[in-house]
Amino acid sequence: MKIVIIGGVAGGASAAARARRLCDQAQIIVLERGRHPSFANCGMPYYVGGEIKSRDKLLVAPIDMLRQRHRLDVRTRSEVVALELADKRVRVQDLESGDEYTESYDKLILATGASPFRPPIEGIDGPRVLELRDLADADRMHEHATSGATHAVVVGAGFIGIEVAENLVRRGIRTTIVELGDQILPPWDREMMVPLEDHLRDQGVRLRLNESAQRFIDSPQGLKIELQSGESIHADFAAICVGVRPESKLAAEAGIACGMRGGIVVNDHMQTNVADVYAVGDVIEVTDFVTKKSAQIPLAGPANRQGRIAADHLFGRPSTYRGTQGTAVVGVFGNVAAMTGQSEKTLRREGLRFEKIYIHPSDHAGYYPGAEAMTLKLLFDPDSGAIFGAQCVGGRGVDKRIDVIAMAIQAGLTVEDLEESELCYAPQFGHAKDPINMAGFVAAGVLRGDQPIVHVDSLSDASGQPSFLLDVRSEAEFLAGHVPGATHIPIEQLRERLGEIPRDQKITAYCKVGQRGYLATRVLLQHGFDAANLSGGYTLWCRYQD
Amino acid sequence: MKIVIIGGVAGGASAAARARRLCDQAQIIVLERGRHPSFANCGMPYYVGGEIKSRDKLLVAPIDMLRQRHRLDVRTRSEVVALELADKRVRVQDLESGDEYTESYDKLILATGASPFRPPIEGIDGPRVLELRDLADADRMHEHATSGATHAVVVGAGFIGIEVAENLVRRGIRTTIVELGDQILPPWDREMMVPLEDHLRDQGVRLRLNESAQRFIDSPQGLKIELQSGESIHADFAAICVGVRPESKLAAEAGIACGMRGGIVVNDHMQTNVADVYAVGDVIEVTDFVTKKSAQIPLAGPANRQGRIAADHLFGRPSTYRGTQGTAVVGVFGNVAAMTGQSEKTLRREGLRFEKIYIHPSDHAGYYPGAEAMTLKLLFDPDSGAIFGAQCVGGRGVDKRIDVIAMAIQAGLTVEDLEESELCYAPQFGHAKDPINMAGFVAAGVLRGDQPIVHVDSLSDASGQPSFLLDVRSEAEFLAGHVPGATHIPIEQLRERLGEIPRDQKITAYCKVGQRGYLATRVLLQHGFDAANLSGGYTLWCRYQD
Repeated sequence: MKIVIIGGVAGGASAAARARRLCDQAQIIVLERGRHPSFANCGMPYYVGGEIKSRDKLLVAPIDMLRQRHRLDVRTRSEVVALELADKRVRVQDLESGDEYTESYDKLILATGASPFRPPIEGIDGPRVLELRDLADADRMHEHATSGATHAVVVGAGFIGIEVAENLVRRGIRTTIVELGDQILPPWDREMMVPLEDHLRDQGVRLRLNESAQRFIDSPQGLKIELQSGESIHADFAAICVGVRPESKLAAEAGIACGMRGGIVVNDHMQTNVADVYAVGDVIEVTDFVTKKSAQIPLAGPANRQGRIAADHLFGRPSTYRGTQGTAVVGVFGNVAAMTGQSEKTLRREGLRFEKIYIHPSDHAGYYPGAEAMTLKLLFDPDSGAIFGAQCVGGRGVDKRIDVIAMAIQAGLTVEDLEESELCYAPQFGHAKDPINMAGFVAAGVLRGDQPIVHVDSLSDASGQPSFLLDVRSEAEFLAGHVPGATHIPIEQLRERLGEIPRDQKITAYCKVGQRGYLATRVLLQHGFDAANLSGGYTLWCRYQD
Repeated sequence: MKIVIIGGVAGGASAAARARRLCDQAQIIVLERGRHPSFANCGMPYYVGGEIKSRDKLLVAPIDMLRQRHRLDVRTRSEVVALELADKRVRVQDLESGDEYTESYDKLILATGASPFRPPIEGIDGPRVLELRDLADADRMHEHATSGATHAVVVGAGFIGIEVAENLVRRGIRTTIVELGDQILPPWDREMMVPLEDHLRDQGVRLRLNESAQRFIDSPQGLKIELQSGESIHADFAAICVGVRPESKLAAEAGIACGMRGGIVVNDHMQTNVADVYAVGDVIEVTDFVTKKSAQIPLAGPANRQGRIAADHLFGRPSTYRGTQGTAVVGVFGNVAAMTGQSEKTLRREGLRFEKIYIHPSDHAGYYPGAEAMTLKLLFDPDSGAIFGAQCVGGRGVDKRIDVIAMAIQAGLTVEDLEESELCYAPQFGHAKDPINMAGFVAAGVLRGDQPIVHVDSLSDASGQPSFLLDVRSEAEFLAGHVPGATHIPIEQLRERLGEIPRDQKITAYCKVGQRGYLATRVLLQHGFDAANLSGGYTLWCRYQD
């Protein structure tokens, strides 16, 4: 068996190592265009920022190890320039010598990844306009960041953009992020990003949302970036981080089927439409685990597992890929955003009926020092209670809760199941009622009708009469700020002051995070009022006012 | 509806609050023997140690809040001295005045908890022999720990014993732990505790395993503790932390059915055998989630959920308790032990067939600074792959992995499902192949026969010919220490040196943690050898040598 793998990072490297373990006799050739196979691309921003001090750390599986330990024929600086699928061979150019040769295969795995999108902006190809795909890019950005630069512009506020910005600030570089959309980190929902955007600004990042770069003008004095708004920014360099596109050109030219967004189409064994040709990683189109529709979701974890599955399958094993949930995490100056499954915006786009709840717990018991706040949003099926997705933003413990919900989604659990989850508890690690349980209690309470809720985004678009807004917090909280028009009755006095509340109007109760609002809603419902709780409370309401 | 709840902490407090939310008209009486309902008993050791500075922090739900916000008739210092179930009433003693009265109920909830076991040791009732159940105990221990004490003895190395020891050391008190068993933290398996025991010793704790206190001798000079071994320890005080017993005496006397270990028997709605009487929390016997057998597992999370379920059910809701998994976590001087489900020792005791694997990953990508090591043990059904339990010991990220596996057990997932889990990955949070995936890969590989394994504990009891031990680590690693009798061939040279390996003997390959041993096993199997990998590698082997 002769296996040729194009691309030696993540999916390609995993496929190669797995193939070797399954068959010690196979000839396995890895063709890698860059100088290094299996490097830590997720670590590059942190190398730029100096958090990872040694560049060698990024070489996860050094080429010698792959050759000696796994007996892989790894050829770096080897670019495949054509796929000759009818003849089951590929045309390779040695980028050192310029020589070309053909290599035959029994099985071919395409793991060409995705490349940074470079929008057609005047001056974008200038020497001070950088990107961050491979180690050569990282070296370049590292050089710029450590050569006296004082100002930089990051175009794009996705994962890489945010990580690059954080790391440039770590180098003491004054950084502006320019983002076309109205929020950072587009996979998350907008209201979840508001505290992180505030946090970025607190860290000195200048954030320009709803904005775009129109022109890069290079001069001996530096780089001038002209924005759509008319503003100009002077910087030492710019980093383009506006997303990636599957690098599927070779495949498409050779007749391999690609999807609308350019990703190679594969079945659940990672097979393309051409016999004996597999594709894995960021170059493919995946099936979304929740919606079962095709999607382009470039993530390292899925890429690695797909590599394994392709190797399994080409040796006759029935391994199948189950689809991508889109579980992701990103650090933002010590804060954390994590998510799994569908977002509200993708559910709306798909036209799926959903309900959502928000809670604002701390990562561990409030009576133990150092508890950090988080906001958890849970999206679920209002009929079955099946979990569609979750987003969490805060500090410590955010990734844990999303991992637990990722597992719940994988298992097809419902919000009622979250009520009964039994998770680690000691005061420094969690709560006797973990945020996961609390999310389950609230969501299942909504499903059971125990707790009708009103969402901040539908408070204003009242269908008919506006609701009577009831703030049940303490006097001090109310005076410090409240929803305009709200009437104030502290929860402790509610039962005695029911006479002050109209019976001919819908009542929307709220508190800081939702707990007292829930209790007020319960009291009001049982006393004959038409009441609901403002989901996420005043805390969430504030995030919609930005 | 008149509801009487005996015990106002955890399960009792949860039941009361839930009952109030479900019915604003109900009369709800909470009878609490102590001075405070709903205090943070899990925080008490940390108050003793000064990590939690203010005692007020331990009063999670102050009595005024319960009275005003939830309209609960909370009566502290009120001890129930008899249950008159035939008449549906309880006899209460006001501990302040000494007066007794009866209180009738429509529904009764027993949440009397568990009390520390005090073994019949001479002198155990002396004034310097403390325990830690309620706030009065915490006050006493706090007083002792902050009044110039320099030496203390903790009897018992369970959760509370370990937490108390840590906090006494935090106060600068030289602390000895005396434990009857051969390991700390009995719910975990012994080999998993070895690194934590070493860590305790590194922190200056004197650990006396297989040892017991025989006599406490109080004198003006302090406390002398005579041990079974003949050793005597002089200390300022001792803390008895040898476990708890369900406080079911009242219930048993009134004819409520109790199990063999003393816990009240309830059905899955938390109903006892007596009509209109429920029981929740540490006083009950639970059903083990995995084995479906009855067990005594005192934990705060289950207690709180049971309280909710009892309240639901007495208002006619069909809520059911699904059994206890035994998910638990404990901090040990900055290290962490967590577990969920069955341990190896309980599986052996139950006579259940199981397989186990060990991995030693880091919490996040090794190339990102600050990665901390952990050991993860996974126990599973060798036929179906169903997960029986997991234990994890290390630093950061331990609780996360156990929570994820707790969810997998709740959902009935298998080790193959863990292979496909999609969890958060960024270099500071995890791995592209998370420890959860790795555990799945290894366990599923064992099930599929890809990777026969040998366990350290069966290396020596060879049935017939001993196996040929093959160390495939580097020269430096081998020279620093290896399993006696092992032959050394680095994995990189294995294929060229197959001639040095006997074909008429079982080969057991090993490396540091298991990964190179796995690769060696794959190579050997494919070249016709009868090979297996030493599970957990040299790292685990060392832990069995203590």
